[in-house]
Amino acid sequence: MFTIGVIGCGYWGPNLIRNFFNLQNADVKTCADLSEKRLDHMKQLYPSLQTTTDFRELTGDTGIDAVVIATPVSSHFPIAKEALEAGKHVFVEKPLASSPEEGTQLVKLAGEMNRVLMVGHTFIYTAAVNKIKDVIDSGELGEIYYVSTTRVNLGIFQEDINVVWDLAPHDISIMNFILDAQPISVSAVGHDYIRSGIQDVAFLTLSYPESVLANIHVSWLDPNKIRRTTVVGSKKMLVYDDVSSLEKIRIYDKGVTVTPHYDTFGEFQLSYRYGDISIPKLDDAEPLKIECKHFVECVENGASCRSSGAHGLDVLLTLGTSDRSMKQGGAQLTIEYPEL
Amino acid sequence: MFTIGVIGCGYWGPNLIRNFFNLQNADVKTCADLSEKRLDHMKQLYPSLQTTTDFRELTGDTGIDAVVIATPVSSHFPIAKEALEAGKHVFVEKPLASSPEEGTQLVKLAGEMNRVLMVGHTFIYTAAVNKIKDVIDSGELGEIYYVSTTRVNLGIFQEDINVVWDLAPHDISIMNFILDAQPISVSAVGHDYIRSGIQDVAFLTLSYPESVLANIHVSWLDPNKIRRTTVVGSKKMLVYDDVSSLEKIRIYDKGVTVTPHYDTFGEFQLSYRYGDISIPKLDDAEPLKIECKHFVECVENGASCRSSGAHGLDVLLTLGTSDRSMKQGGAQLTIEYPEL
Amino acid sequence: MFTIGVIGCGYWGPNLIRNFFNLQNADVKTCADLSEKRLDHMKQLYPSLQTTTDFRELTGDTGIDAVVIATPVSSHFPIAKEALEAGKHVFVEKPLASSPEEGTQLVKLAGEMNRVLMVGHTFIYTAAVNKIKDVIDSGELGEIYYVSTTRVNLGIFQEDINVVWDLAPHDISIMNFILDAQPISVSAVGHDYIRSGIQDVAFLTLSYPESVLANIHVSWLDPNKIRRTTVVGSKKMLVYDDVSSLEKIRIYDKGVTVTPHYDTFGEFQLSYRYGDISIPKLDDAEPLKIECKHFVECVENGASCRSSGAHGLDVLLTLGTSDRSMKQGGAQLTIEYPEL
Amino acid sequence: MFTIGVIGCGYWGPNLIRNFFNLQNADVKTCADLSEKRLDHMKQLYPSLQTTTDFRELTGDTGIDAVVIATPVSSHFPIAKEALEAGKHVFVEKPLASSPEEGTQLVKLAGEMNRVLMVGHTFIYTAAVNKIKDVIDSGELGEIYYVSTTRVNLGIFQEDINVVWDLAPHDISIMNFILDAQPISVSAVGHDYIRSGIQDVAFLTLSYPESVLANIHVSWLDPNKIRRTTVVGSKKMLVYDDVSSLEKIRIYDKGVTVTPHYDTFGEFQLSYRYGDISIPKLDDAEPLKIECKHFVECVENGASCRSSGAHGLDVLLTLGTSDRSMKQGGAQLTIEYPEL
Repeated sequence: MFTIGVIGCGYWGPNLIRNFFNLQNADVKTCADLSEKRLDHMKQLYPSLQTTTDFRELTGDTGIDAVVIATPVSSHFPIAKEALEAGKHVFVEKPLASSPEEGTQLVKLAGEMNRVLMVGHTFIYTAAVNKIKDVIDSGELGEIYYVSTTRVNLGIFQEDINVVWDLAPHDISIMNFILDAQPISVSAVGHDYIRSGIQDVAFLTLSYPESVLANIHVSWLDPNKIRRTTVVGSKKMLVYDDVSSLEKIRIYDKGVTVTPHYDTFGEFQLSYRYGDISIPKLDDAEPLKIECKHFVECVENGASCRSSGAHGLDVLLTLGTSDRSMKQGGAQLTIEYPEL
Repeated sequence: MFTIGVIGCGYWGPNLIRNFFNLQNADVKTCADLSEKRLDHMKQLYPSLQTTTDFRELTGDTGIDAVVIATPVSSHFPIAKEALEAGKHVFVEKPLASSPEEGTQLVKLAGEMNRVLMVGHTFIYTAAVNKIKDVIDSGELGEIYYVSTTRVNLGIFQEDINVVWDLAPHDISIMNFILDAQPISVSAVGHDYIRSGIQDVAFLTLSYPESVLANIHVSWLDPNKIRRTTVVGSKKMLVYDDVSSLEKIRIYDKGVTVTPHYDTFGEFQLSYRYGDISIPKLDDAEPLKIECKHFVECVENGASCRSSGAHGLDVLLTLGTSDRSMKQGGAQLTIEYPEL
Repeated sequence: MFTIGVIGCGYWGPNLIRNFFNLQNADVKTCADLSEKRLDHMKQLYPSLQTTTDFRELTGDTGIDAVVIATPVSSHFPIAKEALEAGKHVFVEKPLASSPEEGTQLVKLAGEMNRVLMVGHTFIYTAAVNKIKDVIDSGELGEIYYVSTTRVNLGIFQEDINVVWDLAPHDISIMNFILDAQPISVSAVGHDYIRSGIQDVAFLTLSYPESVLANIHVSWLDPNKIRRTTVVGSKKMLVYDDVSSLEKIRIYDKGVTVTPHYDTFGEFQLSYRYGDISIPKLDDAEPLKIECKHFVECVENGASCRSSGAHGLDVLLTLGTSDRSMKQGGAQLTIEYPEL
Repeated sequence: MFTIGVIGCGYWGPNLIRNFFNLQNADVKTCADLSEKRLDHMKQLYPSLQTTTDFRELTGDTGIDAVVIATPVSSHFPIAKEALEAGKHVFVEKPLASSPEEGTQLVKLAGEMNRVLMVGHTFIYTAAVNKIKDVIDSGELGEIYYVSTTRVNLGIFQEDINVVWDLAPHDISIMNFILDAQPISVSAVGHDYIRSGIQDVAFLTLSYPESVLANIHVSWLDPNKIRRTTVVGSKKMLVYDDVSSLEKIRIYDKGVTVTPHYDTFGEFQLSYRYGDISIPKLDDAEPLKIECKHFVECVENGASCRSSGAHGLDVLLTLGTSDRSMKQGGAQLTIEYPEL
């Protein structure tokens, strides 16, 4: 039996506890939180669970194989570091850490300790995002031109991170996954309307290899939740609307094909192909369940981790570079990937 | 009777001819086009119309008060210049000219000749855009934070202009009109996927006074036509969907208000106000008819021109600066407005 | 050249004139209307057109091969009768006549005179309705279970006919066409809220052969235009939304299949198949153009007429029986089809 | 403390147990089910709960004040009867019983025993349905003309009841509640496509006082879930779409007003008022919670019960009359309300 300790029982932790509890080959032994009230609530839901306000009781417990971290972002690094140093496998909520430097340290440390370090980029475990990847990989969309995403809502305002760090990790993680690539450069423009110094609206433009552009719009200020990703290819276009319950993915079979012929007046015509729209049926499985199961498999069978520390670090590096670009008024900055 | 000559009877010219014909106090005397076939077609539709392949027969006709120009963009400048110099009032399709320099010359010339120079920015004559302006001016949205627009479709590819020059003039004209302001700076990123050297996708970020941001996404590559403008304010949000026939404007009565209180742990809460959505009924009048009528009024009554040469020049300057920004990889460039 | 006279230049007549004018092998010689003003307007649009206030100038003109009738419903019968008796082919707007008896007379008369009698059931010339018929005929939907239609809007209230006669002819014509069948019986319930004695809302239930049910909801009182037809089959369901411009037809690949197995407790399980949704691209051709062309072909080549007098009479018989059912409080009445 | 026993822990029972558990002034003492497995599951979720396979341990327990019945429809009557006779207050899931006769007996018995009998018509505890009632009562819609509902999906096929008994109770309960009236008569047409003798599609037409018509379409065969209720009034129309998460209610401010003037030719014009659409914000409270709380209040404070036995009986009588109408091919039958 694979034994887990969970640190942080606030907003997201209980979901992780529930999912790990429901796995047949895993057990949650202990959970930690600074709030006694949250611990009491966990105890009520899972009477067998041990609780503590000191996370070191988990990292120091030799009966615990892996630590799951669902605390505020600023504490990801110190806790994950201590857990890895104690020889634990680590599952940490996104983003991996507060800075690229911290993230780099964690990835290196996990390598040195030969432990699994996984980041909770849940979207890449959804049926929708995996369908998108399959469609792209199959060549159905043709050559990918650009990706455009909108992730806006009335925000759960964060005191320690801006809207880019809050929402864009989803988009960057999804894009890196479906394009199977890392962005080369980023330019970002944002503004802080509500709380001085913390951007609540931002527009990012990423350049990927092979001339693929990506545009990300994130906001905490829009009173209409939108979660939309558009992938435009040379043959078809795919639109992923995560707010829709039944029609998350639409594939538009239309495209533009350049005609080879130009007449003597230098005019040219582009032939248009308009076609059907299809809305594929997706599976209903809970992505968090798949993610938790995947973590156990990575530890037990050494499976390659889909949202590995390295994947999480790529996201962090893009976030860090975006912050610098925003400070420089939207300058296009190359993302520097460290040797690992 | 106000007498008009129309130059260019291709894609858009016939619409202008029809609308001016239907005005009671205006008459279309002559139309010019390089194609005899188009002229024959116009003659068939309007037997009273005189036709010519030489536009100078219009600019040189003392019986013509005003010239309407609906030719390819590159010829706007020379024809408009000649018409103004001949003492004609000029209505020219958007964009005003091929470059800010040309546009500046035309605006100055119109001033010197004391003639009306109007640009065919039709959107600011629509019921929807005027409703938006009214809503903003009334303060219903609160302080404006940012505007975001998407104008994408499978393109009518142009051989001489890129997607920014083709589609973004609508957005810039609308934004300048509803915000009653000129953008201070612009950064733009684009790419040429289909025809080398001509951007078919672009993302622009504009900074307006009072910290209002604007983001424009234009594309010729998306096989699903979108015409969406979102205006986010401190109190409400307005979404303008020009593709919808019956529900073009939606106003979301939701907002975020910062609560003054922070508890001892430094946490803070933002109170959310969620409210009703309203979809106002809009008038059905054809905007082109209103625009044509407005042109006649400007000439006859000296009315202040809503889409004046100066308005069209502001758009041109933004387009020109966007082109330079795209060449510099998305640099944020200040827009230089000339003395007029 | 096939020569046509058009009687009635009000709401729909000008559309018919325009379409027949645009056919290469047909000519509109004369049009008739009681209003001189309408005739002047037609003359202005088509200078070659002869006009008259006396429709007998058309039926009596040996230079006219066919008469197109777009007058109020109550005059369809006398005019069509006179035209057929004069040896003209006749195209009459829907519904064919004011009563089944009149309709029967016209169909018989056309047979005796060996002339084409066609009714303007335009919908069965649309790309959408023909796509539905193709999909049904291909077996893609499986066995057809039932059809349900909603055709509601704020009405153009008619003084001489009720909402069933105004709107339901479309639905009955479409259903008879796509099912390739005649309804066996009908029950109808309606009410007259606005004008006493003229139903403005009604619900009809039709029984077709092979246990196919059809339900029709028509109303002049709904301030939101709906044009929706749902065809439910054993394998798939098709929804036709005529208000949608780009997504008129959706095919839901889901169905219910009875499992053969029942366990010992008498319970049974139905296996569900949920699948993709597809939105086929439809052609954009104007149905009225296709309809007018079809009329000429029927006359010239003896093509079998898709919306023949007999088809129009089936619709009339259903309307007449519906009226009787409404008077009897919704009694299910068998539709009596006359020997022709 | 108000003590409750719950009989039936299958599909719906656990929801009731959870909600009653969460009420501060109520306690669930015992639950009964024929399946030991279900009882074990309940015990695991609520360790304090007593369990039994014999419902008479609840009806015979003097420590239990009220019995909640969530068993198959056919057992509602015998269990509820026994519980009432034992002096318990009774909350029974909809429909109240298997026949109007059974329902009448229960309502009379509850009256004689002076006990609360409440039926689980949950919809009339939703924010949406209460908003509709408020809007109607306020006169905002004007005089109500008709109500039309569609409640279709791929069915959870029932072996003992048809689609009318499964789905239409919701619509009838909602209509009776929002119109504050009982239907006078009903005509129904249905068909059994999948399982012989059990209708899986049906269309009902109800007549309410003051000439209000209602049409109900229910089906287990449509692979696209629809839950739509349209209320058309003389001034406005309200559409309630229960499938939509954020825009459940839309009010269309459009209407038809008869103009008093008729010109000499007997023509008449109807003036149209088109106006805004509004989408009111609704509360998010769980209706089942409100319903359970209401049951406790009815018992403890003698509050008038919104979904009383009499309300449930009205629904039953309409269902029973519909069944008879379907057997008679859609005959319009008067609903006979018993003296209570």
